[in-house]
Amino acid sequence: MSQDIRLDVSYAEKFVTEPEAEGMKPVVLAAQKTLLEKTGPGAEFTGWVNLPETYDREEFSRIKKAAEKIRDESRILVVTGVGGSYLGARAAIEFLSKGRGESGLRVLYAGSSLNPDQMNDLLDELEGTDFSVNIISKSGTTTEPAIAFRILKALLEERYGKKGAAGRIYATTDQKKGTLKELADAEGYETFVVPDDIGGRYSVLSAVGLLPIAAAGGDIDALMQGAGRMAEICQSDDPEKNPALLYALYRCALEKKGMEVEVLSNYDAGLHQICEWWKQLFGESLGKEHQGLFPAGMDLTTDLHSMGQYIQDGRRNLIETVLDVKNAGRDIRVPEVPGNADGLQYLNGRSLNEINHKAMEGSIIAHAEGGVPVMRIELDRRDEDSLGQLFCFFEYACGVCGYANGVNPFDQPGVEFYKRNMFRLLGKPGYENK
Amino acid sequence: MSQDIRLDVSYAEKFVTEPEAEGMKPVVLAAQKTLLEKTGPGAEFTGWVNLPETYDREEFSRIKKAAEKIRDESRILVVTGVGGSYLGARAAIEFLSKGRGESGLRVLYAGSSLNPDQMNDLLDELEGTDFSVNIISKSGTTTEPAIAFRILKALLEERYGKKGAAGRIYATTDQKKGTLKELADAEGYETFVVPDDIGGRYSVLSAVGLLPIAAAGGDIDALMQGAGRMAEICQSDDPEKNPALLYALYRCALEKKGMEVEVLSNYDAGLHQICEWWKQLFGESLGKEHQGLFPAGMDLTTDLHSMGQYIQDGRRNLIETVLDVKNAGRDIRVPEVPGNADGLQYLNGRSLNEINHKAMEGSIIAHAEGGVPVMRIELDRRDEDSLGQLFCFFEYACGVCGYANGVNPFDQPGVEFYKRNMFRLLGKPGYENK
Repeated sequence: MSQDIRLDVSYAEKFVTEPEAEGMKPVVLAAQKTLLEKTGPGAEFTGWVNLPETYDREEFSRIKKAAEKIRDESRILVVTGVGGSYLGARAAIEFLSKGRGESGLRVLYAGSSLNPDQMNDLLDELEGTDFSVNIISKSGTTTEPAIAFRILKALLEERYGKKGAAGRIYATTDQKKGTLKELADAEGYETFVVPDDIGGRYSVLSAVGLLPIAAAGGDIDALMQGAGRMAEICQSDDPEKNPALLYALYRCALEKKGMEVEVLSNYDAGLHQICEWWKQLFGESLGKEHQGLFPAGMDLTTDLHSMGQYIQDGRRNLIETVLDVKNAGRDIRVPEVPGNADGLQYLNGRSLNEINHKAMEGSIIAHAEGGVPVMRIELDRRDEDSLGQLFCFFEYACGVCGYANGVNPFDQPGVEFYKRNMFRLLGKPGYENK
Repeated sequence: MSQDIRLDVSYAEKFVTEPEAEGMKPVVLAAQKTLLEKTGPGAEFTGWVNLPETYDREEFSRIKKAAEKIRDESRILVVTGVGGSYLGARAAIEFLSKGRGESGLRVLYAGSSLNPDQMNDLLDELEGTDFSVNIISKSGTTTEPAIAFRILKALLEERYGKKGAAGRIYATTDQKKGTLKELADAEGYETFVVPDDIGGRYSVLSAVGLLPIAAAGGDIDALMQGAGRMAEICQSDDPEKNPALLYALYRCALEKKGMEVEVLSNYDAGLHQICEWWKQLFGESLGKEHQGLFPAGMDLTTDLHSMGQYIQDGRRNLIETVLDVKNAGRDIRVPEVPGNADGLQYLNGRSLNEINHKAMEGSIIAHAEGGVPVMRIELDRRDEDSLGQLFCFFEYACGVCGYANGVNPFDQPGVEFYKRNMFRLLGKPGYENK
């Protein structure tokens, strides 16, 4: 079990006056109450709030069995979904350094774009290698995953026959209705449930995320335990004891003061996809009615050498949140060499994890001095327990921010506009004249 | 030879009134003059302006020979650099779909972070595989690549002996001085030049970018030809004939009206790294003195399912620029199946490239209707000629925007702050008390 997540706001405090923080406190407390009591707009989509406690144990154990079967039968699992149907799983799998074959199974992704090159590259990878498919779609009609699934299904049936293919397809979809559910029942796929009361971007701890994570070798018991502990912490109305509430408080106070962009920084490539997941969570939940901080991710120290100048001295309308994982997976030391020909003598024999953390400290101080409020989320290590906490932390904080901003954090009305245009341009029946 | 790049501003026009465009025109024309006549701040770093014409032919042919030698001797080339020292090369290599082994050589990257996991992953890849290293650093003292190079050099020397290692190391560095130049001369590495009059983010068409691109199998003659043609086009003072000038004009007019974020969208995973390169170019050139649009990249349609809601209906302070590559590399068709069980009958047999482009059209219209000015950069295909044009297009446009904004687009004073803190925290001699 890892230590609990902490939030360090010491480099944000000078940007929020005491009266501002005090003034925002009742706003976020009321928002938290609305969330926990399920009395706000979109309350019918807050099933994730209780998920670590109420999750379906029977399905949970079926997930573990299916994960084992996938690993037994295949060298590759193709997770086929878009947006909230894969971002959480992918974030988890990369955070845990899984899915690259360590457990005997590689995880690849399909159905998140319409790019033919990506699909052809995937088909190249699948040549001569046994694979299974987890198609994840509430309705089954979202264009990207539906096309990818049609292609993958045809390939599976060609290779393993209709019955063999059906045994390698796992459908995570609506419990009762919809195109994919009907197809799964007709063809005999094993199915898992996208709950009705949980939107895509909050669904990582349902079967949507759990099956791919378990297949990749992740310990989903530990994941749920970490989430459960953080869910309890998130009940507290004391920001000193509840880091999600503290994060929401500062975030809202800073937005109210005119901030427009939030950058989520990591110093560890394994967290890149956490930033992608977070961008959907916060962008889609809060970016509406012409409001919301624009969410952006940064991979550091890499991006200090591209975006660092902007962060340090560009427009002063941004806040930075840093994901600080204390312990790297596999450390490595700077080789000791005699002399100082490369100017690195002072680093002889020192650990990269240490040097990376000094760069983080140095950047936090520099950015705060340059006028950027910085918050730091501290995690012990990249394990399932910390990850469960992190997912839960962000989801609660996001729900609170939404209600504090006066928006419904659980809808996404803007996502439909381009689809209507696309369907019309493609001549989809029913859309010709829209 | 591909068609010349076009810029479509029809979905941005309604956001800029005629008087606003007319008012901005003399500003960008004056900025263009300052750039071309090299009379502005930072003019000593505008060597890239003439590069497609004046480049060193002797070095160019040495680059081609070295590229061949690398492919003969190695299965992997490790490009070791950070920021402008690798972003252009990587953007080019991925744009051209090279570097994954097609030419017999894979290109991997090191020295762009301090993350120990990434370094360990790289060392795993190098086990048992012949490799060469291109270390790219003007000074040789930048921490990330210097550490990576120390590790890689030790590995090469262990495996091939001191002399064998020296034959596999290619140093792109200062022509005359500096830590890396001295080391290269002492050890006998072949060296290439980071020109004095070209900053990192404008250096992709110098040896900095050309050696890795050529090694990966890219046609650098065609690249320079495309760049040369665009450089000529960029001399024109007529925005109707000069797309870089038109882009600068709209960008500046929209920024003046209060826009704060620019999103560069692609619909092709092969352009992801172009967005990363562009973020440095524009972020570092224009993000200073508390000014500049915040640059962000989007991979579509993927990110329509995460950032789409924000783009459609979040804060109305953003502009979108779309990279539209007309022809995909390898197309693929939706398999034809009987019936309509998956709701995709209307797409039976249609090309993914076509569907992807309809999604693009649909999104551009939707975003513009939602209040986002959209510009579209149209490229024929992902080849060297188009790429040379694109690099040149953005570099000229960026230089013009900088002078139009009244900043020096060729310095990056903000990048040093975190380094000073980091050196102090690491106890680097000379930084103890800073």
